[in-house]
Amino acid sequence: MTDRNNILYLFHRPTEPIFLNKGNDNVTFEIPPEYLTDRYKTLASDLRTQFPGGKSVPVIKLKNLPDISFPMSLSRSAPFSLFNKHHSKMASKLIEILMAPKIFDNFLSLSVYCRDRINPYMFNYALSVAVIHRSDTRDITLPSHAEIFPNLYMDSSVFSRAREEAIVVQPGSRVPIVIPHDFTASDLDPEQRLSYFREEIGINLHYWHWRLIYPSGGPFAIVNKDRRGELFYYMHQQILARYNMERLCNNMSRVAKLADWRAPIAEGYFPKLDSVLANRVWSPRPVNATLKNINRESDQMSFGIEDLERWRDIIYNAINSGFVKNNDGEEIKLTVGEGIDILGNLVEASDLSLNSSMYGSLHNYGHYAISCINDPDNRFQDNYGVMADAATAMRDPIFYRWHAYIDEIFQEYKATLPAYTVENLTFENIRIHSFNVSTPPAAGLPSPPRNEISTFWLQNDVELSKGLDFIPRGSVFARFTHLQHLPYNYNLTVENSGNQRVGTIRTFIAPKFDERGVQFSFREQRKLFVELDKFSVTLKKGINDIVRRCLDSSVSIPIEMTYRNLDESRPEANAESKASLNYCGCGWPQYMLVAKGNAQGFPCHLFIMITYGAMDQVEETSKEGEKTCDNVSVFCGVRNARYPDSKPMGYPFDRPARDGVATVQEFLTPNMTVQDVKIRHNDITVPQFHRQQKPAKH
Amino acid sequence: MTDRNNILYLFHRPTEPIFLNKGNDNVTFEIPPEYLTDRYKTLASDLRTQFPGGKSVPVIKLKNLPDISFPMSLSRSAPFSLFNKHHSKMASKLIEILMAPKIFDNFLSLSVYCRDRINPYMFNYALSVAVIHRSDTRDITLPSHAEIFPNLYMDSSVFSRAREEAIVVQPGSRVPIVIPHDFTASDLDPEQRLSYFREEIGINLHYWHWRLIYPSGGPFAIVNKDRRGELFYYMHQQILARYNMERLCNNMSRVAKLADWRAPIAEGYFPKLDSVLANRVWSPRPVNATLKNINRESDQMSFGIEDLERWRDIIYNAINSGFVKNNDGEEIKLTVGEGIDILGNLVEASDLSLNSSMYGSLHNYGHYAISCINDPDNRFQDNYGVMADAATAMRDPIFYRWHAYIDEIFQEYKATLPAYTVENLTFENIRIHSFNVSTPPAAGLPSPPRNEISTFWLQNDVELSKGLDFIPRGSVFARFTHLQHLPYNYNLTVENSGNQRVGTIRTFIAPKFDERGVQFSFREQRKLFVELDKFSVTLKKGINDIVRRCLDSSVSIPIEMTYRNLDESRPEANAESKASLNYCGCGWPQYMLVAKGNAQGFPCHLFIMITYGAMDQVEETSKEGEKTCDNVSVFCGVRNARYPDSKPMGYPFDRPARDGVATVQEFLTPNMTVQDVKIRHNDITVPQFHRQQKPAKH
Repeated sequence: MTDRNNILYLFHRPTEPIFLNKGNDNVTFEIPPEYLTDRYKTLASDLRTQFPGGKSVPVIKLKNLPDISFPMSLSRSAPFSLFNKHHSKMASKLIEILMAPKIFDNFLSLSVYCRDRINPYMFNYALSVAVIHRSDTRDITLPSHAEIFPNLYMDSSVFSRAREEAIVVQPGSRVPIVIPHDFTASDLDPEQRLSYFREEIGINLHYWHWRLIYPSGGPFAIVNKDRRGELFYYMHQQILARYNMERLCNNMSRVAKLADWRAPIAEGYFPKLDSVLANRVWSPRPVNATLKNINRESDQMSFGIEDLERWRDIIYNAINSGFVKNNDGEEIKLTVGEGIDILGNLVEASDLSLNSSMYGSLHNYGHYAISCINDPDNRFQDNYGVMADAATAMRDPIFYRWHAYIDEIFQEYKATLPAYTVENLTFENIRIHSFNVSTPPAAGLPSPPRNEISTFWLQNDVELSKGLDFIPRGSVFARFTHLQHLPYNYNLTVENSGNQRVGTIRTFIAPKFDERGVQFSFREQRKLFVELDKFSVTLKKGINDIVRRCLDSSVSIPIEMTYRNLDESRPEANAESKASLNYCGCGWPQYMLVAKGNAQGFPCHLFIMITYGAMDQVEETSKEGEKTCDNVSVFCGVRNARYPDSKPMGYPFDRPARDGVATVQEFLTPNMTVQDVKIRHNDITVPQFHRQQKPAKH
Repeated sequence: MTDRNNILYLFHRPTEPIFLNKGNDNVTFEIPPEYLTDRYKTLASDLRTQFPGGKSVPVIKLKNLPDISFPMSLSRSAPFSLFNKHHSKMASKLIEILMAPKIFDNFLSLSVYCRDRINPYMFNYALSVAVIHRSDTRDITLPSHAEIFPNLYMDSSVFSRAREEAIVVQPGSRVPIVIPHDFTASDLDPEQRLSYFREEIGINLHYWHWRLIYPSGGPFAIVNKDRRGELFYYMHQQILARYNMERLCNNMSRVAKLADWRAPIAEGYFPKLDSVLANRVWSPRPVNATLKNINRESDQMSFGIEDLERWRDIIYNAINSGFVKNNDGEEIKLTVGEGIDILGNLVEASDLSLNSSMYGSLHNYGHYAISCINDPDNRFQDNYGVMADAATAMRDPIFYRWHAYIDEIFQEYKATLPAYTVENLTFENIRIHSFNVSTPPAAGLPSPPRNEISTFWLQNDVELSKGLDFIPRGSVFARFTHLQHLPYNYNLTVENSGNQRVGTIRTFIAPKFDERGVQFSFREQRKLFVELDKFSVTLKKGINDIVRRCLDSSVSIPIEMTYRNLDESRPEANAESKASLNYCGCGWPQYMLVAKGNAQGFPCHLFIMITYGAMDQVEETSKEGEKTCDNVSVFCGVRNARYPDSKPMGYPFDRPARDGVATVQEFLTPNMTVQDVKIRHNDITVPQFHRQQKPAKH
C-alpha cells in the first residue's frame, strides 16, 4: 500500500518543478510524461537522467483528468490572497477537485498533476485543506508552513545569506543565520516594541493554521463547522486581549480601533518579506497612508470606502433591531444561543453569511483594502500588503487596529444580551479555598517566588531547506529569539460539599491596572481577560487539591510545533512536556502563553472558575467518533466534532456584568477566585546551543 | 607579466566570496590565507579542495595593508548611495586607496584584499573608478554594469526564473527570459507610456557610466575635470530635451518642474527592482507622497526642506547679482566663459563647489530626499528609492521633474548672458545649399521616404550569468524589447566661397509643434533641441557634398555596448557600424538616438550648422597625448584631455536669441539650415533569433 506520507513531498520547495528530487531522501516521483508542463515536456528525457533520485514514488496515470482551468487562470507568479473573493473561489474549486478522488492513489496522482500548473501558493493552500479534511489523510501531519514558505515568516535578507551558506559551506560547518529582533523597524517606531509579538513565527503559524481549519470560503462541508462564526469572533477577541496586555507591559496604551476609514493611518509597516512568487516583496505601507476606493480589474474586486461604511451601518442596525435579513428577505432573530455565530459569519463575511449581498464583506474587504492601499487600482502592479494573507497579517500593527474595530461590533451585540445572574454563574456546593501559581525549580534560571511568573528570551532555530527553492540540499538554519516563560503550575484547593461531580476549570489572566495605573473596572477588564486553560476535573466530595501545569494548556501547542524538525534526534527531552506531538498544528504557541511582563513585575489578575461539567458537555456528533490529532480545543475546536464546550466562548467574560458589579472582585461567586500575580521579565537570552552540535546529514 | 584583465574577474558575482571560481574560465585567485575574511579563515583548507579552479591567478601578499576601516564601516548588506555624503566620502577614501599602488600586482592584491570586506556595491564603484583612472588599467574595458548588477536594470522576477532555468535546464536548451515592457506599471498610469525610455538599459548604463567619469566627489584629481560643471548642466539638459520630445511623441505635455517641495507628488513609481544586497528592494513611492525633513542618523544625513529652499534662494541671488562667494568670502564673478561651470559644480554640488557650506548641495540632496520619502528618519530601515543611485534614477518619472527644476536654474543664468549676434554665428563664405536625410535600403524593413526617419521595436538579449550570484554557471539570457531606428544618412551640400578650411558640423533635432499643435517659438524650442552629432570636415573651395551616417554620431555608442557580450561569435556583422568597440562605455545608446515618433509621422526640425573649426579647436593638454578609448565626446569628453570643443556646450541653442528672432527660421545665418523631417513609428517588433542559435559553452 502506498505510503500516504508521500503526499507531503508535494509541499517541498513549492516553485521547484515536480521532477526535481524532494526531501532529504531524494525522492523522485515517477511522473507520467503527459503530466509534465509544456516547457518541460520536450526536455523530459534529459530530465530523467539529469535528476536521478533516491526513493521512487510511483504515480498512476489518471484516465480522466478534471478541468482545472479556473484555478489555473491565476498566473503562477501572481500574488494570491484569500481575502480576494475571486482568488478564494479559485482555491475553493481546487479544494473541491482535490477532495473528490475516492482513492488515495488517485488523490496523489491528481495532486502531482496540479502541482506545476497551479499558482504554487494557491496549490499549497488547497492541498493543505484537502489533507486536513480528507478521511484518508487526516492522520498525516502537515509540514510547518514556515518551513515551506520561510519568506512569509522571516526577514528576506536571510535568503541570500542562506544561499551563500548552502553553496559555500559544507553542511557540517554551517552556522545558523541569526535573525535580529529589529529587522522591520528601529526603536524610533514606537510600535516596534511589540515586534516580538507581531512578528513571532509561532503566532503567525497559529493564525495561518486556524485559517486552514476555518476557511471563510470553500466547499460547504468544509466551511460549515460547528460555531465557526462565534469562533471567528472569539479567536480574534483573544488575540486582541493578548496584544493589549503586551502593550500595557510595554507602556503602550491599548490599541485604538481603526474607526475613521477616511483619515490617514499613522502606523506604517515595512514588512521586509519577500513574496513567495516572482521575487516581489510584500508592499510596505508608509506612515499616514489613506485608504482608497478599490478598483482592481485583474482581481475582479471593486468597492469603495462608502461600501464598507454602508455595511457597517446596516450591521449595527441589525444588532440593535435584534435580527438580520437572510437572502430570502426573512428576518432571522439573533438569539442568545446563535446570534453571535450568525453575526460572526456575517461580519467576516464567510460563505455562511446569511446575506452577503446586503451585509457585504466588512472584515475581509477591510483586510483587502488595507493591503491595496498603495495601489488601489493596481496600476503599479504592486504586490499586496501583509494584510492580504493570514500567514502575514498579524505582523502589521494595523491588523490589531482593524480587528479592534471588528471586535467592537461583536461587543455591541454582546451588550444586548442579558447579563449572567449570580445563579447562572454559581456551581452549587463548590467553593474555592485557595489558588496560586508556583514555578518548580528549573535548570539554569532562578525560580520566581510564588504568584510570580518569570519570562525571558530563548533562541531557537528553524530549518529552511524545505523552502529554499533552487538551492543545494542540506540543512540551513535561521535562529530566532523569542519570548519564553519558566513552566509554572496552577495550585488550586477546592471544597466540594456536594456529591462527586465533574467540573470544568476555566483560567484567565488580565492586567490589573490601566494605562493611568488605575485598577480596571470590570467593564473594561472583562475584554482583556486572556483565556489560559480549560480542562475537566473530577471533584470528589470534600477537599480537592488540584495541580495543573501550564504546559498542559488546552489553548497552546508545544514549542516543538514551531521548531519541531530540529531535534528529531533528541528523543525524550520533551516527552515530559506533552505526551505526543500529535497536534493538528492549530493552537497558540505555549512559549507565548503569558505576556512579556516587565522588569518591575507586571501586576495581573489571575482568575479561575469552576463550572458544572455535566452542563458544559456537548453531545459528540462525530460520525467516526475518533479524534485523529489533538487540536487545542479552545481556539481550534475538535476535528470532525462539535465544539466541546457548550458555554459561550469566553464565558464568563463574554458579556457585561450584572448590575452592581464594578470590579472583578464583585463579580465573583464561591466557585471563582482572583489571585494577584506578577509577570516579571528577565531580560536575558538563553541560547539553544545543543541544536548546533547535532551532526548534519550528508 | 600579469594579465591586467585579471582585475576584471573581481567584478564578477559581487557577493560571492573571492575564493569561488570566477568567469567562464573558472578562474581561481591564489589568495594569501590572511586575506580571507574571519568567517572563512577557519574553513580555508576545506575551501581549497571544494572549489578546484581552472586558470589560476597568483595574488602577491602585501607587506603593508592600508587602513580600510573607514570604508569598511558601512555594512556589507547596507544600501549604498553616492548622493549620501557620508557614503560618498567612504567611496572616495577607497578610490584613493586603490589609486595608490604604483605597481599593477599590488593594485590587484589590494583589490582582492578589499573585495570581501567592503560593501560590494561600494567596492565595485570604487574599483570601476580606479580602473578607469589608473594609468596601468585605462586600456581595459570594464564589464557592463548591467551584467554585474542585473538587479539594477531589470524586473526582479527575472531572477527566480533565471535560477530555475540555470538549475533545471542544460545550457544548450535554455530559453531567454522575456522581460515585458510593462513590468513596473500598467497603462492606467499615464507615465507608463514613457517606460520604454525611462527603463531602457542602455540609457541607464549611460548615466551610470557618466557618473564613473564625472563623480561628484572623490580624489581631487579625478573630480577636477575640464568643464565638468558645465557638462553636468549640459548632459542633463540634453536628457530633458530628449525626454520632452519623447513625451510630445506620446501626446504627453512637457515635464513639469518639481517646484513646490511641500506639495504631494502626483507621480508614483514602483521600481520592482531588487537591491543588490540583503534581498531588499528599491523602495516604491506611492502616488501623492510628500517630501519630508531628513534626519537619518545611520546615514549621517540631516537637513530640511527649508534648507533646500534656502540654497535655491541664495543660488538665484548669486545668478542675478553675477557672482558667487567662495569659501574665503571673496566674490567670484560668473563670467561668460566660466560662469556656467562654476554654477554647475555649485548646484550639483560636487567637491568643486566654491562654497558648499553657503550654497549647500541642492541637486544631490534633492535626489536623496526624494529617495527617502517613505522613511525620512530611517525608522523602518527601508531601502532608498531609485533616485539614490545613478544606475537607477532615470527610471523614475520624478527624475525628470527634479532635473527640470535644476535645469531652470541654469537657464536663468544663461538668460543673463549676451545673445549671440549674427556675426558671432556666421561662418564667413560658407553657405548651405541643401540638407536632407535619407535611409539606405535595409533587409526586411521598408525604407522610409526622404526626410523621414523610421523607428520600430527590436529584441535583444543580455547575458546574466556574471551577476547571478550563487547560481550554477552557464549563460542565462534576459530578452528586452527596445526602440530602434533604421540607420539613416545626413546629406549636406555646402558651398565654400573662401579658402579650404575645416568646419565643425553641429546637428540638432527638435519637435516642430508644441502640445497645442502650434509651431514652437525659438524661445521654447531652443531648450528642446537634441544634439545628434558633431564632427569635423574639411571644406574644399567650391561645392562640398557631405554624407554622414547616423551610426557615426559622436553622441552615441553602438548597440553592442549594451548587448555586447552576446555575439562574440558574430565577427564582422557590426564591423561596418563602427570601426571598433573600443569605447570607454560612456555615451548615449545609438538605438535611442532619435525619439520614437508616432504612427502619423512626428514633425521635427532638423537643424545643421557649420562653424569655423580653427575657432572651435582646443589645445590638447593630455600629458601622454594618447587616447586610450573613444569616449563619445559630446557627453563624455575625452579621457585625460580637455573637452574638445571650445564653444559653450549646446551652442548655438544654449542662450536666448538676439532681439527680433521669434522662430528658428529667423535665427538662421547662411551656415545653418533647418529641414522639416518626420519620425514615423512602425509598431512592429523585430526578433533577434540568431542570438539564440549560438551554441552555449559547457
